[in-house]
Amino acid sequence: MQLSSQLILSLEQAIQNHQIEEIKRLITQVNHADLADLLANLSFDQQLKLIEYLPHAAYVFEFLSLTEQLEIALRLPKAQLVQLISDMHSDDSTDLFKVLPLKLQHEVYTQLNTEKRQQIKQLAQYAEQSAGAIMSSDFVTLSPDLNMTQAIEQLRQQASDRETLYLIYITDEALKLLGVVSLREIILAEAHKTIAEIMSTDLVVGYVYDDQETIAQKLSHYDFIALPIIDDAQHLQGIVTYDDAMDVVQEEMIEDFLKSSAVSSSPNFSLKTAPILFLYKKRVFWLVILVFGSLLSGIGIAHFEDIIAANIVLVFFLPLLVGSGGNAGSQSATLMVRALAMGDVELKDWLKLIGRETLVALSLGGTMAFAVSILGYIRGDAMVALVLALSMMGIVLLGCLIGMSLPFILNRLKLDPASASAPLVTSICDATGVIVYLFIASIFLGQVVA
Amino acid sequence: MQLSSQLILSLEQAIQNHQIEEIKRLITQVNHADLADLLANLSFDQQLKLIEYLPHAAYVFEFLSLTEQLEIALRLPKAQLVQLISDMHSDDSTDLFKVLPLKLQHEVYTQLNTEKRQQIKQLAQYAEQSAGAIMSSDFVTLSPDLNMTQAIEQLRQQASDRETLYLIYITDEALKLLGVVSLREIILAEAHKTIAEIMSTDLVVGYVYDDQETIAQKLSHYDFIALPIIDDAQHLQGIVTYDDAMDVVQEEMIEDFLKSSAVSSSPNFSLKTAPILFLYKKRVFWLVILVFGSLLSGIGIAHFEDIIAANIVLVFFLPLLVGSGGNAGSQSATLMVRALAMGDVELKDWLKLIGRETLVALSLGGTMAFAVSILGYIRGDAMVALVLALSMMGIVLLGCLIGMSLPFILNRLKLDPASASAPLVTSICDATGVIVYLFIASIFLGQVVA
Repeated sequence: MQLSSQLILSLEQAIQNHQIEEIKRLITQVNHADLADLLANLSFDQQLKLIEYLPHAAYVFEFLSLTEQLEIALRLPKAQLVQLISDMHSDDSTDLFKVLPLKLQHEVYTQLNTEKRQQIKQLAQYAEQSAGAIMSSDFVTLSPDLNMTQAIEQLRQQASDRETLYLIYITDEALKLLGVVSLREIILAEAHKTIAEIMSTDLVVGYVYDDQETIAQKLSHYDFIALPIIDDAQHLQGIVTYDDAMDVVQEEMIEDFLKSSAVSSSPNFSLKTAPILFLYKKRVFWLVILVFGSLLSGIGIAHFEDIIAANIVLVFFLPLLVGSGGNAGSQSATLMVRALAMGDVELKDWLKLIGRETLVALSLGGTMAFAVSILGYIRGDAMVALVLALSMMGIVLLGCLIGMSLPFILNRLKLDPASASAPLVTSICDATGVIVYLFIASIFLGQVVA
Repeated sequence: MQLSSQLILSLEQAIQNHQIEEIKRLITQVNHADLADLLANLSFDQQLKLIEYLPHAAYVFEFLSLTEQLEIALRLPKAQLVQLISDMHSDDSTDLFKVLPLKLQHEVYTQLNTEKRQQIKQLAQYAEQSAGAIMSSDFVTLSPDLNMTQAIEQLRQQASDRETLYLIYITDEALKLLGVVSLREIILAEAHKTIAEIMSTDLVVGYVYDDQETIAQKLSHYDFIALPIIDDAQHLQGIVTYDDAMDVVQEEMIEDFLKSSAVSSSPNFSLKTAPILFLYKKRVFWLVILVFGSLLSGIGIAHFEDIIAANIVLVFFLPLLVGSGGNAGSQSATLMVRALAMGDVELKDWLKLIGRETLVALSLGGTMAFAVSILGYIRGDAMVALVLALSMMGIVLLGCLIGMSLPFILNRLKLDPASASAPLVTSICDATGVIVYLFIASIFLGQVVA
C-alpha cells in the first residue's frame, strides 16, 4: 500500500528534476484530484508539459476550479484546447465553453465534432443554477429487451466516457424514460433474465427547469448516485451525479451563510486573492442601507431627548437593552431561516410557531430582565430597575417576534428568507428597542422632569 | 414510466383501505426513502404491519431519523427488534443500538449472532463524530490474485448486504489494505486479467480517529463513492460512503451557521416539536453573556456622561455609529470564518490579510463617513459633521480588524472559529465604537462644555 500523499511528493520531485520517464510512470498512478492540485501550482510551461503527458488530461482538468481552467485554456494552443474540450464530460466542457471569450468560443466551436456541438448547444441553453445547467449528458442507456449478458456487453461498449456506469437508464428509442436499473442488480441477476424483468419502474426524477437545490435535496434524500433529469415529454435529457450534488449543497449553504451576514452572495471568490474593489462592492451596499436603518433609532432618540437630558443614566443602559433585542431577534431569525431551508417548517405552521416563540421569548426576556434590573438598582434606584425590567421583557419579546416573522414574510413575498440577515433584523429590532425603552422610561420617570 | 409520487399515493390509499394484497404488491415497487417517509407518518399498529410485509424492512428503517427509529424500536416485539438490528447495515445498527436503554441493549445483544455482536462492539468504541463512529463495516474485499470472472463470482456471493459494490478493496488475509478497484474497471477489463494487474495502489484513506468533517471533505475533494478507513497498522476497518459524507457536510454547516448566531449548536432538533425548555436552554446562555458584553458600552458611556449631557445631539447618532462598526465587523468575521473553514486561508496568511482588510475597511469607512457627515451637518453643524466622519472612519476600521482577527485568534487557541459569532463580534465592536465616538467628540466638542 502506498499513500497518495507519498506518490504526489515523488511526482513533484520528478517534475522539479525534469525526469520525464519518471513523470510519465508516476502520473498513471496518482489520482485525478491530486493531479489537478499539482497542476494548479505549476508554472505554465510545466502545466503544458504535464497536460501533454497525461493519459486523461481532460478528466484531471475537470477537477480544477473554473477560474483555473479558464486561465490555462486561454494560453493553450488552439488544437490542444479543442481536444481538451472534446474529451471533457459534457457538463464540465459546457461550463468552460460558456466562460471563454466570444471570439475564442466561435473558433473552438467550428472545430468540435457534431456530437459535441450538439451537447454544448443543448446544455448551454438552460438557466444558471437550474438542473439543466448542472446536468451531464454522458449517461448510459439500455433497451429493456436485453438479457444480462447482452447488457454487460453493451455497457462495456458505452462505458469509456460516461460519468457513471452504476445507474443505468432504460429508455425507448426516442429516449423516453421507462425505468432504471443499477449495475449491482445486473451483476446479481441470473444471466438469462431481461432488463425489463429486473428494472425498477418507480422513478424518482428531476426536471430540466428545476432549481439545482431541489435536485441536490432529492439526491441526498434518496441517497442515489445519480438522478435522471427529464423534460415535460418525459424524455431523458441528462443526469446529475452525487458529486455535483455535494458541490451544490456546499455552494447553497455558503450562499445562505453570507446572506445572513449582509454580504452579497456569490461564494466563488477567494478572500486571499479577490481584488479589493470586488470585496468593497460585495459589502458596501448592505452597510450603507443599514446606516439608514440605524437612523430610525436616532429618530426615536430625538423624540425623547428631554427625558434623556433629565436622566443621563438612561444612556448607560441604552446599548445593553437595544443590543439584547437585536441579539434575541437574530437568534430567532437564524433558527427560522434554517428551519425553512431544511423544510422543517412551512408557511402554514406560522401561527403555531408564533405561540411557541412567545413562550420562549417570555422565558428569555424574564431571565434577562432579572439580570438587568439588579444592575439598574446598583446604578440607579428601584424605579430605574423597574423601567429596565419592563423594557427588557418588551424588547426581547418584540425582537423574537420580529426575528421569527421576517423570514416568513420574505418567503411569502417570494424573496429568499436568508436575506433576513442578522444585521437587517438587528437594525429593525434596535429601532423598536429604542422606542420601547424610552417610552416606558418617559411613563415612569417623566414626572421627575415635570 | 411511473412517477414515485403516484405510487406512494396508491400505497397510502391501499393502507387506508386495508387492501393487504395491494399493499404487498405496491411496497415492492416503492423505493426505500419514500417507504420510510410513509412509515414515519403511520399509526403504530399500521407501522407494525408494514414492517412485517416489507421484504427489506431494515433498509427502509435506515432512512428514518434516529429519533423515529428509537420510537418504533422501543415498542417492537423483542424478536422483531433483534431481526431488524441484525439486518441493518453495521453503521446504522450500531447507531440505533447505542441509543437503546441499557437493559434493552443487554437483552438484544445476547440474542444477536456472533458476527453482529463483533461489529457493534467494534464500531461502538469510537468517539462521536470520528470516522470510526460513522463508518460501516459492510465493505467488499477481494484478494489480488483473482481474475475478472472469479472476481465477479466472488462479488455475487458477497454482494447482498454490502453498502456498495462499486468500490472494492483489495486486502491480504489479515485485511491489510493493498489496493482499490472499481466495479467499472472490473466490467471493462479483459476476463483473463487479475485484480493485481488492474487495481490502483495510489490509496486515499482516512483513519478511524479522523474527524468526520475531514473524511467528508476528502470524499468531496476526490469525488469518490466511498473512502476506506484504516487503523495505524493499515488494516481496513470500514468505509464511509458518499451519502454519509453528504449528511456530515450538511450537519457541520448547520452547526457553524447556528454558532454564528449565538445559538448553542446541535442541529438535530426540530423547531416545530422541540420542547420550549430545550429551546430556552439553547439560547439563554449566549444572550446573558452578551448582556454583560453590552455593559462594556455602558461603562464607556458613563465615562463621557458630561460631554453627552452638554451635547444631547450626540445620542442621536450613537446607535448609527456604533451599529455600523458592529455590522462591518460581523461581515469581516463571517467572511473569515468561511474562508478558514473552506481552507481558503491559513494562519500564516494573517499579516497579508490584515493589509488587504485595512484597505477594504478604509474604502468602506470613507463611503460611510461621507454619508453620515451630511446627516451630521443637517442635524448639527460643521463641527458635528467632522466628528461623525472621523468617528465613522475609526469605528469601521477597528470593527473590520476586530472582526477579521477574532476568528484567527480563536483558531490559534484551538477553539472553533465559528464561535466568533456575529453577536459576540458585535458586542466587542459596540463597546469599541462607543469609546472611539465619545473620545473624538470630547476632543472637538469638549471646549463647548468648558
